[in-house]
Amino acid sequence: MKFVCTQQDLNINLALVARAVSTRPTHPVLANIKIEVSQDPDRIQLTGFDLSLGIQTNFSAQVAAAGMLTLPAKLLTDIVAKLPSGEITIDDEAGENLVTITSASGRYQVLGMSAEEFPELPAIEDGEPNQLSATAFIDGLKGSLVACSQDESKQVLTGVYLKVEPERLEFAATDGHRLGIVEVYPSDYEPSVDAPAERGAQPNTGSFEVTVPAKALRELEKMLGSGHEVDRLGLQLEQGQVVFGWADRKLTTRTLEGKYPDYRLLIPKQFQRQITLDRKQLLTALERIAVLADRSNLVKFSIDSTKQSIDLTVESQDRGSGRESLMAQISGADLDIAFNIKYLMDGLKTLLTQEIAINLNGPLEPVILTPLGGVKMTYLVMPVQLRS
Amino acid sequence: MKFVCTQQDLNINLALVARAVSTRPTHPVLANIKIEVSQDPDRIQLTGFDLSLGIQTNFSAQVAAAGMLTLPAKLLTDIVAKLPSGEITIDDEAGENLVTITSASGRYQVLGMSAEEFPELPAIEDGEPNQLSATAFIDGLKGSLVACSQDESKQVLTGVYLKVEPERLEFAATDGHRLGIVEVYPSDYEPSVDAPAERGAQPNTGSFEVTVPAKALRELEKMLGSGHEVDRLGLQLEQGQVVFGWADRKLTTRTLEGKYPDYRLLIPKQFQRQITLDRKQLLTALERIAVLADRSNLVKFSIDSTKQSIDLTVESQDRGSGRESLMAQISGADLDIAFNIKYLMDGLKTLLTQEIAINLNGPLEPVILTPLGGVKMTYLVMPVQLRS
Repeated sequence: MKFVCTQQDLNINLALVARAVSTRPTHPVLANIKIEVSQDPDRIQLTGFDLSLGIQTNFSAQVAAAGMLTLPAKLLTDIVAKLPSGEITIDDEAGENLVTITSASGRYQVLGMSAEEFPELPAIEDGEPNQLSATAFIDGLKGSLVACSQDESKQVLTGVYLKVEPERLEFAATDGHRLGIVEVYPSDYEPSVDAPAERGAQPNTGSFEVTVPAKALRELEKMLGSGHEVDRLGLQLEQGQVVFGWADRKLTTRTLEGKYPDYRLLIPKQFQRQITLDRKQLLTALERIAVLADRSNLVKFSIDSTKQSIDLTVESQDRGSGRESLMAQISGADLDIAFNIKYLMDGLKTLLTQEIAINLNGPLEPVILTPLGGVKMTYLVMPVQLRS
Repeated sequence: MKFVCTQQDLNINLALVARAVSTRPTHPVLANIKIEVSQDPDRIQLTGFDLSLGIQTNFSAQVAAAGMLTLPAKLLTDIVAKLPSGEITIDDEAGENLVTITSASGRYQVLGMSAEEFPELPAIEDGEPNQLSATAFIDGLKGSLVACSQDESKQVLTGVYLKVEPERLEFAATDGHRLGIVEVYPSDYEPSVDAPAERGAQPNTGSFEVTVPAKALRELEKMLGSGHEVDRLGLQLEQGQVVFGWADRKLTTRTLEGKYPDYRLLIPKQFQRQITLDRKQLLTALERIAVLADRSNLVKFSIDSTKQSIDLTVESQDRGSGRESLMAQISGADLDIAFNIKYLMDGLKTLLTQEIAINLNGPLEPVILTPLGGVKMTYLVMPVQLRS
């Protein structure tokens, strides 16, 4: 194998696939990135795979000899990241699995491993991928990923539940303390009717549901959000695997087994109280008093409908106390209610409008935060019992 | 006590003194910052002290009632850092040692401790402080701090040896593997002769030597380098203590006991070889191949006077190898010599000129790096024996 590419192309693509390489690989070859070099057309394909998450990218280069092998991910990315911009030549002419990287002033030799031992990424051969709006997908991830459980023992709750329908996508996640739901309607995101048909904008016809690990979706969110605009995202599903594909890139992940809980049951049908307020103002006030929170992470809201104001209080037994006041439009009776301040701040960060509504019933019933306008997001947070 | 000040003033000054507060205090009050509020003139004095390093700052405020107490450093700096800009009122009217911090929208209460338990910073009453050029002092620290030992058991080697003479300052540090020396001549830094005499630019008359802990000097370097220009730095020395003072600020530190080694003996009188080269080019080449260094951190220089070039090679037994080549003006015979790549990079970062000279003898004799022009710096690094 031998090819010439730019330092920039190689660096960007290595950094992407390296994110799927485990830092504690179960087999030595899984610490490596697979490099596949092909001719006519001249392409370099890079793959990182930790047996659950796989990332694959393709980019063009001048190929002198096709071939494939694997190289240590960390060492290779570190070397290439520091090389000066300009052309880099990579070949394995020095010996079996010994790769030479040549730049303007330097020459590096790294010992790799055969690509034969590297497991294949799951590929789904059957059927056309569902075509989703990438922007709609990013919006869906924003409002749901935040509520995933971090506790690996909670299995299905460590992922985002995704429901794909022809005209609608629903994203949901909950860790038992809060719940994020986003509904997006791809038609809201469609390019104008003048857009050429070959963009592949066929309506999405399949309907299915799947729970995808948060880790993979966080990587997907980063990849879609960085660099050049991605228009449409292909999604293929087969037993136990999802494959996302766009442009020259692909991300595969195993799915999470098990029935996702029926989260709709948690959402109250009606509310006795509603608050409308400035999201950023509430968030910064919470960030300030959060400094005083102790391990219980408790913040108390004293909602005063006469004054149309809310007092936020944090009290820590041994550190002190903090109080912030803010104005809000409040309908319904006065209420004292307490929350985990972290869960509340997490939710406020995902609702992107300036004004939001907070819907409440009693001091121990679920509370719903929604943006006023924009994407249809629901952030549910369970109150915490106030110490009397 | 009660005063009103701006969030900015309080925030900046708290952040400075907090750097002298230990994260593992030996006494509870040492986790606190002392606040001393005085009237006529209205001043706030903040002090942090870990019994070795002390930092004290003063700033103006509207004082309604004088007084003093101590507050937890981390909590106080965290609260104040997050408050919105504008006026802050601080008082202890709520109860003994209970301090209320009031901003536009919030009110925080923090429990402090009496200032009586807080140890006094060392003060040196006798004599006028030596007045040094602050810029000269910063230059001296730059070239010496890098060579201090990080090993606390090495006592005197964990500090910078400072020799103050009427017309000359010398800074030196060594950890046994490398040595940094800077000589500065305050007259090179004097403001123009038109500068008003009241700037306090009396010649420095005392002569003395002292070894100052690197930790304190790193804080001093940061404080002098940040914010408004500091012109002159006062230095007072008494048994076991040094006090640096400038503008409204003061830094005190214990000194390190013991005789500093006679480092001048290490510097060869003459050299068989000299190299002149571009500092930045050598540094970036070393940074690139450093990626491949194993625990021995070894880089080999192959100096070729015929080609007027140097090959830098790093070889790791199990990771691979890297080679960079660069052009240089070389006088003297060819030589293969090896260094600890980290020590070499550290030194190259402190020499600030574009071109530098490297002076060498044999493969196991000390090597001297000096800038071509600018401040008189000497960076000595011991070669490492090449594995044959």
